This record gives sequence, C-alpha cells and structure tokens, in this order.
Amino acid sequence: MEQFLNEAKKGSRVLNTLSGREKNRILREMAEAMRANTMTLIEANAIDMANGKENNLSSALMDRLLLDENRIDAMAVAVEEIAALKEPTGRVLDGWVTEDGLKIEKVSIPIGVIGIIYESRPNVTSDTAALCFKSSNVCVLKGGKEAENSNQAIAKVLQAVLEKNNLPKELISLLPDSSREGVAKLIKMDKYVDLIIPRGGEALIRYVSENATVSVVKHDKGLCHTYIDKDADQEKAVKIAINAKVQRPGVCNAMETLLVDKAVAAEVLPKLKEGFDAAGTDLRGCGATQDIINVTNATDEDYDTEYLANILSIKVVDGVNEAIEHIVRFGSGHSEAIITENITTAEEFLNNIDAAALYVNASTRFTDGGAFGFGAEVGISTNKLHARGPMGIEGLTTYKFKIYGSGQTR
Amino acid sequence: MEQFLNEAKKGSRVLNTLSGREKNRILREMAEAMRANTMTLIEANAIDMANGKENNLSSALMDRLLLDENRIDAMAVAVEEIAALKEPTGRVLDGWVTEDGLKIEKVSIPIGVIGIIYESRPNVTSDTAALCFKSSNVCVLKGGKEAENSNQAIAKVLQAVLEKNNLPKELISLLPDSSREGVAKLIKMDKYVDLIIPRGGEALIRYVSENATVSVVKHDKGLCHTYIDKDADQEKAVKIAINAKVQRPGVCNAMETLLVDKAVAAEVLPKLKEGFDAAGTDLRGCGATQDIINVTNATDEDYDTEYLANILSIKVVDGVNEAIEHIVRFGSGHSEAIITENITTAEEFLNNIDAAALYVNASTRFTDGGAFGFGAEVGISTNKLHARGPMGIEGLTTYKFKIYGSGQTR
Repeated sequence: MEQFLNEAKKGSRVLNTLSGREKNRILREMAEAMRANTMTLIEANAIDMANGKENNLSSALMDRLLLDENRIDAMAVAVEEIAALKEPTGRVLDGWVTEDGLKIEKVSIPIGVIGIIYESRPNVTSDTAALCFKSSNVCVLKGGKEAENSNQAIAKVLQAVLEKNNLPKELISLLPDSSREGVAKLIKMDKYVDLIIPRGGEALIRYVSENATVSVVKHDKGLCHTYIDKDADQEKAVKIAINAKVQRPGVCNAMETLLVDKAVAAEVLPKLKEGFDAAGTDLRGCGATQDIINVTNATDEDYDTEYLANILSIKVVDGVNEAIEHIVRFGSGHSEAIITENITTAEEFLNNIDAAALYVNASTRFTDGGAFGFGAEVGISTNKLHARGPMGIEGLTTYKFKIYGSGQTR
Repeated sequence: MEQFLNEAKKGSRVLNTLSGREKNRILREMAEAMRANTMTLIEANAIDMANGKENNLSSALMDRLLLDENRIDAMAVAVEEIAALKEPTGRVLDGWVTEDGLKIEKVSIPIGVIGIIYESRPNVTSDTAALCFKSSNVCVLKGGKEAENSNQAIAKVLQAVLEKNNLPKELISLLPDSSREGVAKLIKMDKYVDLIIPRGGEALIRYVSENATVSVVKHDKGLCHTYIDKDADQEKAVKIAINAKVQRPGVCNAMETLLVDKAVAAEVLPKLKEGFDAAGTDLRGCGATQDIINVTNATDEDYDTEYLANILSIKVVDGVNEAIEHIVRFGSGHSEAIITENITTAEEFLNNIDAAALYVNASTRFTDGGAFGFGAEVGISTNKLHARGPMGIEGLTTYKFKIYGSGQTR
C-alpha cells in the first residue's frame, strides 16, 4: 500500500506538468474509450448484477448498479462536460502589494492525492476520476464491493488512455486493497494522501472521521426541514413541501420534517394531506397535527431520523422561533427552507440557523452542484470547513501564495 | 466537560445576535480592563515566573512568559487593533442567479466553537480571545502549563467585561481540565467543537492530528529553504540568506537549509561565510561546500531538522531542478525562496514546489499575517485545506448559502 501511494504521490507532480489543453484532450479520449468499450463494460457489469441478484440486493440498489448502453454514453458525456469546464488550477484568487513592496499572488493549485470512498453507482468512478484529472489531482478510488467488477473495468479503460499518453496509470487508481483494512490504512497515510472524501452511510463517515489522520471532507446525511410560516403563500407552501418530500425521497436534500406555524395549521394541513396522500406519503405528526388531520404519531425519534423514504414527520410550532429551535436541535446542517412572504421572518430564519443551504420559498431539493450551476459535482459536503454544501471542482483545489520581491529582508 | 462545552455551543448563538458595533465596543472595554488590571496581571504572572525559575525554564522561555506594564499595554493595543478590523462575518463572498431563478448568496459566518491549544506566551490568550470574539466565535483556550496563572488572570479580566455586558462568560473560556486527558476529551467533542487549532511542538500536533474527530488546522513546523541560483544577484542573495537565518532563528519561517547552485558556489559561498561568521551562525555543509569553505559536515539528518536555532545546513546543487528535488524531499510545505534574476527559473521554482508561501528574491521571514497585511493573525497554518499559510481573521470564518426563491420546485 505504501509503495503504491508513493507512486500516486509522485504522479501528482507529473500531472502538474500537463497543460489544460492536454488534460482536456485526454479526457475526451477517455470519453471515447468508454463508448468504444461499451460491451466490455456491460459484460463486467453483468457479473456484478449476477452477484447482486445472488446476494438479494434491493431493486433500488440493483437499478443503481446497472450499466447499459445509454448509461455508458451518459458517463462519456459527463466526462466531456468536465473537459469543457474552465481550468480550475492557476486561477489568481487574490493579489496585492504589501507595505514592503512584495507582490503577493494567491493562486489555486491541486490538492494532491485524493482518496474517495463511495458506494454502488459505477458512474461515480468515471465522474470522480475525470473531476480529479481535470483539477490535476491523483485519485485513489474505493467503490462499493457490489460494483467491483464494473469499477475495475471502467478504471482499466481510463488507465489505458493514460498509458497511451505516456502517463502513469497510478493517476487514476482503484485502492488495491479494498477491504476494511485497506480503508483503515488509506485514511492514515497522511504522508501521501492529502484528502479523503467519504460518501456513504453514517457508519462509514463516522469510522473515517474517528480514524483518519488525513483531512476529511464528509458527504454525510441530510435531515432537512421545511417551515411553513403564518405569512406563507399557501399555494407555494403546499407545492414546495410536496416537492421537497416526494420528488426523490431517497436523497440527502429531501425533506424529512415539515414544521407548520400553528396560526395557519388548521388551514394548510388538510391541503398538504391531500397532496401527500396522492403521492402515497406515510405521514406522522405531533399531537396538534393529529388534532387537525388523521396521521400516526411522530416521536422525537422520528424527528431525529433521516428516512430516505417517502415518510414525513409533521410538527406544529409556535412561530418562527420554535421552528428555529427545532431545527437547531434536530437539523444536520444540510438544507433548511422557510416558506413566508415576510422579509423579517425570512431573514430571522436565514441568520439563526447554521446550515450549508438555507432557502426562502424554494424546495430543499435544489442543494446540488448542477442546480447551483457548478457543473459536475464532487458531491454535497456536510463539512463546515474547506467545502460546504454542493462541492464543485473548485472544492478539489487549494492555494499557495507566490511572492515576488526585489531583495526584501526584515 | 460535556456540560461546559454545551454552554459554549449555546453561547455561539448568543454571539450571532451582537452587532459589529456592540462587539467592537466590548473589545475596547476589554482593552481598557486589561490596562486597569495591570497590577493584578503582573502579580499572577509573578507566580508563573517564580514557578518557571524553580523548574529551570530556559531564559528564552522565561522571556516569553514575562508580563510587564509595557507588554500588557501592547496586549491592550492588539485588542483595540482587532476591534478596528473590518467585520469578518456577513460578507457576501459570491452571489449569482441560477437557471431556475434562485438568487444565491454565499455569505461568511462564524465557525462556531474553536478550541485553541498553545504554548508559553500569555499575550496569545488575549489576542486569540479577541480574534474569536470579533469573528463571533466562542473560544476554548488551552495555554501552556507554565503560563497558567497569567492566562487565568487574563481570562478573568476578559470574562468580567462579558458579564458586565450580560453575556455568558463561556464565550471566552479556558479549558476547565487543562491536563492531557482534558485535551484528549476536547479534540473528540465534535458535537460541540467545530475546529481545533493546535499551535506548538511536533508531538502535540501529531497527537492532535491522530486523535481528533474535530477538524484541525495545524500550526506546525517550518523547514524552510533558500536557493541561490546561478543567475542570482549575489548581493541580494547574501543579504536575503543572512536575513532569513539570523534575524530571528527561533521562528518557523526562518531558513534551515541554504541551497547554492554549483555554478556560483565558489564565488558566493565565501561571501556568505563572512556574513554568517559575523552573525555567529553554526554552519554545516555537504562535501562540495566543504571544498570551498571551512564548515562542519551536514548529513541527511541535518537537512531533515528544523533547528529553530542559529544553525544552517548548506548544500551545493546542480541547478534549479536539484534544488526543487531537495525541497520536495525535505521541505515541510511552509516557506521556500529562490534568488534569481531569471524569470523562467523563478517560475519553474514557483510552480513545481508545493508550499504555502514561495518567494522570489525575498526572505522567507515575511511569512506572517502582519507582513502579508492581514492585521492580527491567528497563526501560520501548515494545513493544506481551509487556511494555508498566514491565517488572518478570515480563517476563523466559514460560509453558508442563502437562497432566495419565489416558489421553485424541481
């Protein structure tokens, strides 16, 4: 492992010598190579699919795992889109002249070697490899066990393009030891690895946070709320609440708890119930909610749960302050929304909650790189530092200061 | 400990309600209170000084520990200067409208609760407390054991001002259990603490990095190099090299190793020796160096040592590429300098070395917040992420996205 990571680290210096034009040409070659190897990729994926069937993977997981011609083309298109992004390194982020006459430039640079731990979808392999290559970072990828054959086939296609271009194949690597022990080693290799990005379940994130000596940018859970204020436009409120829950319940920016101002609960809850019933949502509510609509009981445990399913907890609250208190207690700092026409209430909500993304009159579902306009995204960071919220390719860069003097001493 | 940190965490919400004007007024009151309590502070410091004498602290450490009227006034002035800084929170860092018509604002906010671990100088207590208060962060301070009485007296003065202003004294706290076990607990309290800044020796930094679950911004060692190129202006080169080593050898941005291009070694080394001899520097050199000037032998261990003393290793290298290789192998990513009049060589050096600060024709001694023009500094970060190099008050902020919609759903 150490020797492998040493090669990866050396590779990061090779990457620095490539021009943006070379990197983009190679990325386009990678996209073409994926298309040309469609059948090979589908065959490798078929092994994973067969194993998945044998291991009784859920139909949702099986669907995430599947590669077909369309999906492989979509992966190639994603790589081409990444090639088309603006060069992320070498940007002058700031610059000034000091009192001593030193000219300082703060310039974006690659982070170095990035370890990424993720789960079932094989497209993450090519997306992440392309994002790292575009930003001149070496990536060490550790995908899910269930997608092992697919990921290996994809990496092989990408590595063949690297080698054809006389580049070390270590620039895009799968972690050689993909066991738990392999991960345990990787996250302690701060001599070679500059950043670990764990994307996955709470147990993985917790494990990495507790054991890594390398810096970590977590992609953790989202326990997101929507608060319907007494001054809400109720039509907007109902539309946004239903969208935030049901449009795609299994993702981190979906709503888990709906908070409703008691001043309008009697009026708005029946309208909400109608919409949620039509969408087949399992509704749970506090006592005050149950006094108005017929739902099962919600407990503190419900308020503390990221369902990732079409289930919603509802709580009636006494105005924006109680809504804020509830979110401060139960929120995960991901995405929170208020529906109100009142500017003072809106600002109170925005200023008193600490979360990556705070919405006024919009669905929490917008928290992602695409919707934010970042282009391809690394994921949605739940870190408070370095990258917070949707993490675009800029999140894969850091900076250095270049200082031009003319003989200055202190 | 948990209850104490819970209070600290709550305090961070109180801080958010203060206006910049209120914070600045309170900071000026703190400065005045320190001046008014000069005698109390000197008395507390006298206990530390007596203990230090008993424990045979070095004269350098005793000097760092000492508080007198002038130093206390300087501490008060530093707090007033922090009050005068521009408000670091609430800055709109970026803003745009998405394709869906969402108006996104990226806004700077406090990090929350920050634990800072540092060593002997008591002025760090008031500096850090003021920087955190100004940026609306709660600080939990853990100073050196040898300065315990001084730090407690300073914290008491600052806390009295907080209480006079009806603010919880937990906003500026000393870690209640300042033992090794107390630190071990603190760095695992990610539920309450958002950032740990360890400033100190390698053992401390290593311990915190290996055991923290809280994010860490390290303030680690500097093993800094100066490379004198064949195209250097030799007068500048000698002046800068001597300054980088001898002006203050005990700090992290001082030079530890001097690299000299073999093309000019015979010419420039004797001039350097003359200057270093006058400054009493203990010179060590490679074989090629010893062929030219009379110095003791430098080993790889020397090249790998942060002396923090008036000792210098010298190595003759074959041009900028060997200089880069040496720095890649031994450098700590802090500050590196090249002395050359050749623009291509300079850019090669700047682009191929990964360090926080890279200098052309200037002394590495400029790597600090004051010299960079940041005003007061938190320290010099050796992290690669979040804050790199001189860390001003901006380094004590993170951001959130405020998103204004008009009913958007996906």
